[in-house]
Amino acid sequence: MIAIGSAYYPEQWSLDRVEYDASLMRDAGLRFVRIGEFAWSRLEPEDGKFQFDHMIAAIRIFERYGIRVIFCTPGAAAPAWLVRRHPEVLIRKPDGTSAHFGVRQHTCYASPVYRKYLGRLVEKLADALQECTNLAGFQIDNEIGHTVFGLCHCGHCRKEFRKWLEERYGTLEELNRAWWNGFWSQDYSSWDEIEPGNMELRENSAHVLDSIRFHSAQKCAYLQFQAEILRRHFPGLPIAANNASGSADCHALYALVDRAGLDCYPTSEEDKSLSYPADRYAGMKPGVPFWVLETGVGGHLISGVPHSRRLSSHYWSFIAHGAELISIFWWRSAPGGFEKTLVGIVGHNGKPRRRYHQLKNWITELDRVTAATGPLPLPRAEAGILYDHENLWGYSCGFWRLWQDYENAAVKTHEACSKLHISSNVISPKESFDSFKIILMPSLLHISPEVAERLKAFVANGGILIASGRTGTQDANAKFLTGRCPEHLSDLFGIALEDEIPSASRLPGEGETPDPEKHVAFAGLLDGGTFRGFAAGTLLDAEVADAEILAAFENSDLAGCPAVTEKKYGKGRAIHINAFEIDSASFLRILRHAADAAGLVLPDIPGDVEILKRGTVTFLINRHGRSLEFDYAAADAETLLGERHGTRIALPPYGVCILKGNAGRA
Amino acid sequence: MIAIGSAYYPEQWSLDRVEYDASLMRDAGLRFVRIGEFAWSRLEPEDGKFQFDHMIAAIRIFERYGIRVIFCTPGAAAPAWLVRRHPEVLIRKPDGTSAHFGVRQHTCYASPVYRKYLGRLVEKLADALQECTNLAGFQIDNEIGHTVFGLCHCGHCRKEFRKWLEERYGTLEELNRAWWNGFWSQDYSSWDEIEPGNMELRENSAHVLDSIRFHSAQKCAYLQFQAEILRRHFPGLPIAANNASGSADCHALYALVDRAGLDCYPTSEEDKSLSYPADRYAGMKPGVPFWVLETGVGGHLISGVPHSRRLSSHYWSFIAHGAELISIFWWRSAPGGFEKTLVGIVGHNGKPRRRYHQLKNWITELDRVTAATGPLPLPRAEAGILYDHENLWGYSCGFWRLWQDYENAAVKTHEACSKLHISSNVISPKESFDSFKIILMPSLLHISPEVAERLKAFVANGGILIASGRTGTQDANAKFLTGRCPEHLSDLFGIALEDEIPSASRLPGEGETPDPEKHVAFAGLLDGGTFRGFAAGTLLDAEVADAEILAAFENSDLAGCPAVTEKKYGKGRAIHINAFEIDSASFLRILRHAADAAGLVLPDIPGDVEILKRGTVTFLINRHGRSLEFDYAAADAETLLGERHGTRIALPPYGVCILKGNAGRA
Amino acid sequence: MIAIGSAYYPEQWSLDRVEYDASLMRDAGLRFVRIGEFAWSRLEPEDGKFQFDHMIAAIRIFERYGIRVIFCTPGAAAPAWLVRRHPEVLIRKPDGTSAHFGVRQHTCYASPVYRKYLGRLVEKLADALQECTNLAGFQIDNEIGHTVFGLCHCGHCRKEFRKWLEERYGTLEELNRAWWNGFWSQDYSSWDEIEPGNMELRENSAHVLDSIRFHSAQKCAYLQFQAEILRRHFPGLPIAANNASGSADCHALYALVDRAGLDCYPTSEEDKSLSYPADRYAGMKPGVPFWVLETGVGGHLISGVPHSRRLSSHYWSFIAHGAELISIFWWRSAPGGFEKTLVGIVGHNGKPRRRYHQLKNWITELDRVTAATGPLPLPRAEAGILYDHENLWGYSCGFWRLWQDYENAAVKTHEACSKLHISSNVISPKESFDSFKIILMPSLLHISPEVAERLKAFVANGGILIASGRTGTQDANAKFLTGRCPEHLSDLFGIALEDEIPSASRLPGEGETPDPEKHVAFAGLLDGGTFRGFAAGTLLDAEVADAEILAAFENSDLAGCPAVTEKKYGKGRAIHINAFEIDSASFLRILRHAADAAGLVLPDIPGDVEILKRGTVTFLINRHGRSLEFDYAAADAETLLGERHGTRIALPPYGVCILKGNAGRA
Repeated sequence: MIAIGSAYYPEQWSLDRVEYDASLMRDAGLRFVRIGEFAWSRLEPEDGKFQFDHMIAAIRIFERYGIRVIFCTPGAAAPAWLVRRHPEVLIRKPDGTSAHFGVRQHTCYASPVYRKYLGRLVEKLADALQECTNLAGFQIDNEIGHTVFGLCHCGHCRKEFRKWLEERYGTLEELNRAWWNGFWSQDYSSWDEIEPGNMELRENSAHVLDSIRFHSAQKCAYLQFQAEILRRHFPGLPIAANNASGSADCHALYALVDRAGLDCYPTSEEDKSLSYPADRYAGMKPGVPFWVLETGVGGHLISGVPHSRRLSSHYWSFIAHGAELISIFWWRSAPGGFEKTLVGIVGHNGKPRRRYHQLKNWITELDRVTAATGPLPLPRAEAGILYDHENLWGYSCGFWRLWQDYENAAVKTHEACSKLHISSNVISPKESFDSFKIILMPSLLHISPEVAERLKAFVANGGILIASGRTGTQDANAKFLTGRCPEHLSDLFGIALEDEIPSASRLPGEGETPDPEKHVAFAGLLDGGTFRGFAAGTLLDAEVADAEILAAFENSDLAGCPAVTEKKYGKGRAIHINAFEIDSASFLRILRHAADAAGLVLPDIPGDVEILKRGTVTFLINRHGRSLEFDYAAADAETLLGERHGTRIALPPYGVCILKGNAGRA
Repeated sequence: MIAIGSAYYPEQWSLDRVEYDASLMRDAGLRFVRIGEFAWSRLEPEDGKFQFDHMIAAIRIFERYGIRVIFCTPGAAAPAWLVRRHPEVLIRKPDGTSAHFGVRQHTCYASPVYRKYLGRLVEKLADALQECTNLAGFQIDNEIGHTVFGLCHCGHCRKEFRKWLEERYGTLEELNRAWWNGFWSQDYSSWDEIEPGNMELRENSAHVLDSIRFHSAQKCAYLQFQAEILRRHFPGLPIAANNASGSADCHALYALVDRAGLDCYPTSEEDKSLSYPADRYAGMKPGVPFWVLETGVGGHLISGVPHSRRLSSHYWSFIAHGAELISIFWWRSAPGGFEKTLVGIVGHNGKPRRRYHQLKNWITELDRVTAATGPLPLPRAEAGILYDHENLWGYSCGFWRLWQDYENAAVKTHEACSKLHISSNVISPKESFDSFKIILMPSLLHISPEVAERLKAFVANGGILIASGRTGTQDANAKFLTGRCPEHLSDLFGIALEDEIPSASRLPGEGETPDPEKHVAFAGLLDGGTFRGFAAGTLLDAEVADAEILAAFENSDLAGCPAVTEKKYGKGRAIHINAFEIDSASFLRILRHAADAAGLVLPDIPGDVEILKRGTVTFLINRHGRSLEFDYAAADAETLLGERHGTRIALPPYGVCILKGNAGRA
Repeated sequence: MIAIGSAYYPEQWSLDRVEYDASLMRDAGLRFVRIGEFAWSRLEPEDGKFQFDHMIAAIRIFERYGIRVIFCTPGAAAPAWLVRRHPEVLIRKPDGTSAHFGVRQHTCYASPVYRKYLGRLVEKLADALQECTNLAGFQIDNEIGHTVFGLCHCGHCRKEFRKWLEERYGTLEELNRAWWNGFWSQDYSSWDEIEPGNMELRENSAHVLDSIRFHSAQKCAYLQFQAEILRRHFPGLPIAANNASGSADCHALYALVDRAGLDCYPTSEEDKSLSYPADRYAGMKPGVPFWVLETGVGGHLISGVPHSRRLSSHYWSFIAHGAELISIFWWRSAPGGFEKTLVGIVGHNGKPRRRYHQLKNWITELDRVTAATGPLPLPRAEAGILYDHENLWGYSCGFWRLWQDYENAAVKTHEACSKLHISSNVISPKESFDSFKIILMPSLLHISPEVAERLKAFVANGGILIASGRTGTQDANAKFLTGRCPEHLSDLFGIALEDEIPSASRLPGEGETPDPEKHVAFAGLLDGGTFRGFAAGTLLDAEVADAEILAAFENSDLAGCPAVTEKKYGKGRAIHINAFEIDSASFLRILRHAADAAGLVLPDIPGDVEILKRGTVTFLINRHGRSLEFDYAAADAETLLGERHGTRIALPPYGVCILKGNAGRA
């Protein structure tokens, strides 16, 4: 059963009010509350003085109303007394100044002092929670890494960073070599000379990359020590983390917990689909359902007029993608504090009004549908999109604007899959590729031998691999390779990437006449038709050893050179796009070609309709604010939600149709 | 007699030159100089070594030329020796670094050391000035609060802030409650843990609000201690302050002096009227004329081609709004210093040229007109626009961009009054409402019981009140109320504001076709005609208890809910607009409706003409760069300035017409 | 013989690879490498431990391949051990924090400790290099002043700045006067009170100007002490510096070395010509060829599709302007370090590919052409554009955005010369004017008596002088003059600049209808035709004593006043434009008028064609990406490069034509 719940702050309200809220929740069909993440100053108002009574009493009230509890460890907001007693727990900035009390996420994840105090509290809490029978699970901290204060430079971090480097590289000679410190006279002659990087322009990328790696490891250890305490006390309960920052290796971090938690608020941007974040979290722990640990119920950042219809569309989409639970932020708008203008299910005055009743109606609908479907297996992704955090950091080091470029490459790749109705997950290259028909690999600079072997096996066994950009041209320290590229994969693709040609060319705009002085065109034949498109950004100077040229560049210094190549390898194919970016239409051509080769039968419905299958249940979701009508063969299927007449399905703006049974086949 | 004068810096010039300047001033009709605000380093070049001879001699020269003196206390620019001897007087930033010498407003308003040194100097100066017979008044400091260094965090301020809080809240329990510190674990367990807020994103709004309040009180005390010295020495002379920063409660600050001083430079923005700042300062001390203590004479920020015509238009507008004097910045462009590119009445070379003669001509015109009018009573404002600094801070805390939103709401409200020729003043809610026919109350979040009582009395006695937005939904600490809203006024408006609905909708642009998916429309009947408009920003979910619905929302989640309500209350009416913003045309409809109800007869002249009456004298000012012609009945009136043929008045771009006698009635 | 070479980093590569690279270079015709500037940590890995073997061995390899060496002193990147041992060498920011290791240019140019360590290394290196026979010259440091850390505020700089001021001004009274410290109470009563300026808004411009002057002098001394060491060891070899920052007085700085080194990368901006920087460096040391010490070979900032054609066009342009050598950055893309994405002649994998062969072909072409031409005299500039660094600083002090305004004024003036094919150099006002026919003087605020005398002599002898803006209105401390302006030149121009009139007017846009309320027009007669144009920015209120009015303002407060004046003075003419900016077409009219008066015969070819003559060799370069065809009389000339049929020359996009012999005359 898919559970809907909400964030709740018992520490802010009287027990009477908690009781009233619990009754409202039960009436609306809410099944759990997520509590505790900012409660430290109320749970331990002074050093060692623990006051859990109110919190436990609140949990007991929820128990009585059949509402379960996800308890969050309260490390994201250290109390004032701790900061005053131990200012060394504050994040220190590169210029020697410190973060300050009064916001949140102001403390160093690596600080042993901080971990000592937090660990003591978590132990005590775990003891106290033993008596509660309605615990549903735990969340560690809140949004780990989302601090505004950057990478910590405190004394402990500086010392530990040096130790971490010494373990990694053994000698300074090796570190100087691995970081290419000969440039700009950056060799170290003593470990003590090394400071964490500042993520500023003009720093050596290897230095910064290792600085982020080190801090990512601290975030993992910070999560892990808390998870261990909780596992010791509650061996059976699931532990989650939510919305870890991209400055942590999210795959590594979520690997330490039982559920990956997505925080994802609808925005006022029209037609902005949330299927990319959903598929990122669906791929975070493949085979395990994800949790939506925060989503909005109407503001303050959100909009759309009217919005209620769009919100339920988003909720259905989360479920279609495999969400096991949805926790709405928040039950009630708080009167004060920084987030006071964020609306809740219940407004500032605490009365159940419009949003409460809209949500209640939707939960009724949800319960009706899920009663009809029974337990749902996870949706099966046909395509895997590889996304690697260390690659992200290496890609962008020294040029932080590129951070977004890499993210955008993943988003665009995912969008192309959506348009063709190829279900996809965004996964770590370390995950198994076995369940996929297609692997998409945008700009993966570093390829480990292990990943290379599995990619080869994937293709040999019939998989289709599509890569683009500087595939396999860098080592693990973001240094360019000087040998044959794509490293370990040159044979798989049948090409050698010999050089890159920077290009300021842009893709032709909508309706713009292509100009050979400004736009780089490529042309060829694909599936028996002419194939013509445009490339932008850095182009790759590739030599073909043993591959078919699907298209060649028509102009620029690379005129005549291969733009897109394909090699049949075993039962599969490896396609390489020799540019950082090509126009969407061309990418869709290549993807459709790959889908054909993979034997996928793609539904003939509008690209704006999201389609997902969980077992025999099919979800059809209109992602946009325009009505759509189309034919979809589902003769024997039962319509659980939405409007269908024979094969004709009508979706209002943001509308949803749910079918049970044989669908998608004539 | 309205006096024109200018800023002058005797400390920069020889006595010969002072004499020459004084003769030029006399010839041009200038009546005073404003001097001294930056002269500390010349008045006290070393600690305790006072050198007033040159300054006093200069004042004596002005005496001989019949030019009076407004003397400014010189606290806005502390000298180098003081900063070096007492670096603790510098404003300290949150990160522990300090403001530096070399600019201005670098010192802490609260510093007892600073006040000690400044107080000693002011005492000595007051003694020395006793002998001068041409003093016209004083100005305290210059533009108090306009520092670029933010709220001070020096040791003294930190200690005093804690004391101030202890006095305000008594106990930490009460402070934690009042600030809603339970969110983000922000409870304090010791007063020493509290630091002033940083006005940064993500801080608790109550914390920041009290930090600004505390610093505002310091600014008031800083002004007050100097005013006391001057009052002791010169009991009869008026004391002013100029252009206090919005980070001080200007109403509280100007209450401590005899005149509110407006600093207001024309900008290059075409058609930018200065009537809003004038009406803000006219309302700063109701019943007391304001002073224009700085305005421009042509640059460096100004422009417009040609500008001289526009400048005199602005000067006339100041006078029409109730200015008692106008001090032009500055007499002569200084050769050096930061402001050297700001032009003066006389240019860098000291010769009287174009600007000097233009000003001289204008003063001749002014003197001719004022000789004909005799002493002028202040203009009478028909409408009061409520503006509250604590509301401003509470409105914007944590989201500083909202600072401008609140200001803009007041500006737009004022502009609507101008368009309909309803004279208005911007006033503190603490002022009496007795003299007004209409009170406009944009987004007043916090309503005290006292203000509520007076508003009710105002309406009961026949006044018309128009409020919009989240009226009365927050307490004095910017916390949302959980009870019935608008607090204390629910009965007056006959509605309850139950909830707010964030909306990203915008008003339809010029010529844009309204789209129900993007724009929130409302419709109803008003004064017998259909009434249709659009709302934007946060909408209010209001329930009507006892009011007429003038318009209801047509679409969005609030479709069918009241958009504009009116309750007849006693002899008056209370109108509430359930949105933060509505389109201008609709607001003008409501305002015209209110004016009718208030029995105002609005002149039928173009909206771009500003009209003001001081007693029997009528000022008609073309605010824009386009010629205008219109009819205006003023049969018996004498035309003191401008072109009139019978009822026909022709105003060139920025042109002015001044009539004496019965005007505006057929 | 014009030499082509490249930046090389022996410290990054094995000697085997160096040998292979040397052979590739020789095969491509490269004649030198530029090495050493970032090698400190490899040359002196620990304090006093010098390891020159690898570097010397590499130089020896180049020796064997006939490749010469420009050796750079390695001060631009101090090693970690030095920073750790002597943190006081780091640049200190105004807030007391320091620059940090991990980037480059992090050390103080004035630091005696830094100079001691660097001097020791340079001495040792100079000793070691004695044995090398293939040295071609030296470069001091790299891009002096291009630090991101601003003006240093370290203890040494603060002390030395005070000493420098004491030497300059003698007494505090004089300094207070010279800086106009009476404004904002900025007088000093002790030298110890003075700190270097921060280049922040709101500072006294004289304070900041002297701060930059002081630091500029430090940069010169920093260069000089190294040059002395090298001259002592290598008396015959030329010493260069490259791309000094505008925060140094480049004219003063390059005067200390034998060659000015231009670093100039093509950008992706379409049609961006590099002739302005080339003419700036051609004028840096008049009569001495300049070196191009860095230019690109294809990225990462560059672009254009295709780019190779455009690169060779730029290289030819450098040569046409008088470059003696061109050093390409860099030989090979480094695998790591901050600049790893900058492409080299050889790519990351070290293989000679596309860019290598393109360059090789171009060098073959170059060698063929230069063999035919023999040694080339420098091109002769007909016009000198005066550019003064102290003027730049004074112009922009307090308003740093004006920095770019001044630079743009020079660029636009140069562009006008280019359009009319008047060859120009950008020179210091301190240089001789003897060789020029026309002097252009945009916005030269300060005119020394010495410069004034030479300008008068220049005009008296038949030269044409065109000045604009606030000519001669400020003293050497950026203070406005109070006497007759343009100082020392009032007689030459026959005018007095009495005042300035700020104006927010802008030039009418392309196709915009002029509006007298928005645009300032002027009109008159020039060379028998009507002359009408527009002015923007500050206008000058000039009185004509003894000059012809070529055009007068038509509207604005200056209507009827002279806009452009000309005085015949001796055999020449002095033209003054009484505005900061006029429209391009009008400026071209004035310039053509000046060229006629100067007896210049301007070639009748398209404005987009750059034409330069070195002796009997004529270079015609298409600066743009569009093909051009035109007639050019060169009956007897030999076509060394490009396409010519009789008088018809066809230039493809960015194409070049080189003629030898009598050209340009029918």
